Amino acid sequence: MAGLSDYAGLAARLGVDAVAIVPGPNFARMTGYDFHTNERPLVIVIPADGPPAAVVPNLELASFDLLGFSGAVFDWRDQDGYQPAFAALARHLPVASLAVEGQVMRVFVQLALAAAWPGLRIVDAEREISGLRIRKTAAEIAALERAIAISERALANVLDNVRMGQTEKQVESLLVQALFAQGAEDMAFAPIVAAADNSARPHASARPDYAIRPGDALLLDFGARWGGLCADITRTVFVGHATDEAEQVYDTVLRANQAGHAHTRPGASAHEVDDAVISVLEASPFADRIRTKTGHGLGREVHEAPYIMRGNHQVLEPGMVFTNEPGLYRIGGFGVRIEDDILVTDTGCRSLTACPRELIVVGP
Amino acid sequence: MAGLSDYAGLAARLGVDAVAIVPGPNFARMTGYDFHTNERPLVIVIPADGPPAAVVPNLELASFDLLGFSGAVFDWRDQDGYQPAFAALARHLPVASLAVEGQVMRVFVQLALAAAWPGLRIVDAEREISGLRIRKTAAEIAALERAIAISERALANVLDNVRMGQTEKQVESLLVQALFAQGAEDMAFAPIVAAADNSARPHASARPDYAIRPGDALLLDFGARWGGLCADITRTVFVGHATDEAEQVYDTVLRANQAGHAHTRPGASAHEVDDAVISVLEASPFADRIRTKTGHGLGREVHEAPYIMRGNHQVLEPGMVFTNEPGLYRIGGFGVRIEDDILVTDTGCRSLTACPRELIVVGP
Repeated sequence: MAGLSDYAGLAARLGVDAVAIVPGPNFARMTGYDFHTNERPLVIVIPADGPPAAVVPNLELASFDLLGFSGAVFDWRDQDGYQPAFAALARHLPVASLAVEGQVMRVFVQLALAAAWPGLRIVDAEREISGLRIRKTAAEIAALERAIAISERALANVLDNVRMGQTEKQVESLLVQALFAQGAEDMAFAPIVAAADNSARPHASARPDYAIRPGDALLLDFGARWGGLCADITRTVFVGHATDEAEQVYDTVLRANQAGHAHTRPGASAHEVDDAVISVLEASPFADRIRTKTGHGLGREVHEAPYIMRGNHQVLEPGMVFTNEPGLYRIGGFGVRIEDDILVTDTGCRSLTACPRELIVVGP
Repeated sequence: MAGLSDYAGLAARLGVDAVAIVPGPNFARMTGYDFHTNERPLVIVIPADGPPAAVVPNLELASFDLLGFSGAVFDWRDQDGYQPAFAALARHLPVASLAVEGQVMRVFVQLALAAAWPGLRIVDAEREISGLRIRKTAAEIAALERAIAISERALANVLDNVRMGQTEKQVESLLVQALFAQGAEDMAFAPIVAAADNSARPHASARPDYAIRPGDALLLDFGARWGGLCADITRTVFVGHATDEAEQVYDTVLRANQAGHAHTRPGASAHEVDDAVISVLEASPFADRIRTKTGHGLGREVHEAPYIMRGNHQVLEPGMVFTNEPGLYRIGGFGVRIEDDILVTDTGCRSLTACPRELIVVGP
């Protein structure tokens, strides 16, 4: 089980006694395994000094054994509840301050920890803990490239098969089946397939009762998960034909996307990239349609650091991966988004997404 | 937006000023919509008295509008962060005590709430809040039946196509593609496809490097999601042939499963059903292979109340749905689990799962 020492070092750096990791992206990075524990708390506590310890549901012990975890394990059975195991952990490992993953840990686990160590000071160290995986390893980049290749083959398949009159839900179903047929292990997130006015909602749901029509924008935002890594791609195509307005909007979004590629290099800040992208949109006649920032980091989570937005002066480093996804959204009208996944390299950047960015008309 | 008054009534009953609901199963029940907000907090606060209010990410406003929410909305943009919106909510709505969904809300949202209302008393009311959806509506049962029918057709397809020498991962891929081809909107959870010793891990992951062999147990635990409801089915089949030991174990688990069906009726307790099921396993020569309770509630979440285990004296009521999934697991050997989804009716119970339970041999 690699990387435990990273978390011990982080505890020391944060000035807390220990770091707690629950199943999720940091757990997967640390252990190489993903767990879905639902209502059953599982926590690994890594102190700044000394061996780690864990609370594990009894029925997960056979899976937990695969991790090669060297510390003490306090297991619990459903009939007994988990609090006694937390109390045993606390007796074993005195902790007065604990860093947690605020966006991963749920309240009931925090309450169990707080009850076990009375007076415990809990620190939300989401940024620092997930920061340990902000620079992707070569293995992570390879897995991401595979997830993206699967996603792009699925997209090509859908664009060949989409037909006028299909509902958003039917197109979504084509996309989902294509993702798994191409080798996805999971979907990175519930895909967005949205036409016409629905495409103006940045996080729309596919409608079962809307059939695509000539002139519609059709936005597909989706990605495969492979090897624990998440692809995240958006393309907006047009059904039958694109209106003049659509062509102008598309051209504007594409130029913003190109500005994102052009400004990404080590040493640039997230702020600078977003500023370059959004400035293109702001200089256009469609500035009132801006609703989102440029993008977000991508890896074991589909949304993670670095967040590419003005005001975030985080400096880009080789190995970081993020989405470049400018969009313009006219509420009640239509939306256009073009989203690539970009890797920061030693000298600049490389787009991991390679599918066409020019305006495409689909659906005979 | 139906059901707001249920939550106001619950706040009064719990003796707190308000209930907070975040995206997830309770949110979906209350609003009819599911939201995936990731790192962006969205919270609806329903006071015991007076109109509700919400904090909503600005880029979700177009989707949030669909809810027909009548209260005040405080939106926030990524560049500004969410804390000012929480502060505005707190000025608008004075709250000193707040019930939250402990198994849904994440720590960073709790911290934002606590910072907005200094001295706030937070109560984990997971049981009471999710309890509001413990008796399924007719519409929920219809959606669940559809999710189960999709899952059963997918299983039949896989059992027809599984072949000796396929890896666990290949069988998993067949299953996932079949689920979506049959109409799944999503998977209810990451499926378990596990053979031989891996089937003895209650929550195993499919291995890419293990090819199924004659005599192997092959356990499939999976389900479609449709209309927001989750199917959850397990069948254990045998590759080529079943050993004598496997036949005896299978027969024992099947008798335990039958005891679960036989003892489920309104007025019985979760404890009594589990006791009837586990007693069959305990009376067998395989008592040392018991690792799990009988089951868990099923609905918008794949694990929810009622938990069917000894010590839980919750009384079963018509409209409750839970899994009946006894299993026996010999670590390093093999596991057998037979899982049905059971609806408590006015007079007894009805199994929503109808696929065969007798021992099946697959894979020419």
